[in-house]
Amino acid sequence: MMQYSQEQLKLFMQAAIGEAHKAATMGEVPIGCVVVDDGVIIGRGHNLRESSHDVTAHAEICAIQQANQQKKDWRLENCSLFVTLEPCPMCAGAIVNARLKSVYYGCADKKAGSAGTLMNLLTETRFNHQVEVDKGLCRLECVKLLSDFFAKIREKTEKD
Amino acid sequence: MMQYSQEQLKLFMQAAIGEAHKAATMGEVPIGCVVVDDGVIIGRGHNLRESSHDVTAHAEICAIQQANQQKKDWRLENCSLFVTLEPCPMCAGAIVNARLKSVYYGCADKKAGSAGTLMNLLTETRFNHQVEVDKGLCRLECVKLLSDFFAKIREKTEKD
Repeated sequence: MMQYSQEQLKLFMQAAIGEAHKAATMGEVPIGCVVVDDGVIIGRGHNLRESSHDVTAHAEICAIQQANQQKKDWRLENCSLFVTLEPCPMCAGAIVNARLKSVYYGCADKKAGSAGTLMNLLTETRFNHQVEVDKGLCRLECVKLLSDFFAKIREKTEKD
Repeated sequence: MMQYSQEQLKLFMQAAIGEAHKAATMGEVPIGCVVVDDGVIIGRGHNLRESSHDVTAHAEICAIQQANQQKKDWRLENCSLFVTLEPCPMCAGAIVNARLKSVYYGCADKKAGSAGTLMNLLTETRFNHQVEVDKGLCRLECVKLLSDFFAKIREKTEKD
């Protein structure tokens, strides 16, 4: 996990946080993601599940699909993925399928987290590829994104 | 799992097999899928990973996305999914996320099968939804799809 300096890692996670803000302004749960190849962001995505009516439109899936098109290759070997919230099983599976090198996530997901919390699909040795995992980069900011969003929803519901 | 008769179940799996043949004619690994809502096919998909350069373009993801658009809803509650090969972790995760009622798969996948072979994400009680699983519907035909495809590739490679 020594490919990027701590400063660079934070800049990539800040880009993912920027994506999450885009989701929030659309009323979507604020989760954002970027895929980085050799220091360059080649895929960006934010959660669009409600507005697109597409259950697969998680931030990670959107960012991976964009990176695939950028490289014209379904393989994202040597790429790193930065996401504000721990991946669910679907996204963890996509990350393994795309053969990403490493994943950095901001905060853990107690309900569906499948990169260390409920299970770890990224390091599962029975699959044909394993991914390095780092958690806690910009954690407080990633937690705040979600807590602010849900606090606003509660506030709105109480007013209604 | 008593929603459909054995005859109906076979017809739905035959539709998934038809999708798999479409993949084969494109040189893609032949895997096909349909999503059924109240007896009606509302989503069809076949593996397009190579031609689309999209790692997420598995048969199940394509069929689920089409079903989502048909219903204008990311939730596919009470729907059933028929797929020729056991889902990988990405597809199993998407099936749980979409809250499908049941999954029927033709043959097991020893390398990545996550609906009973390596693990079972569909019945995992720590997630917020569980899916009924049935394996072996039209199994021999689903096995033959894949073995014929790989035999052809070997034959071609040996000729070259």
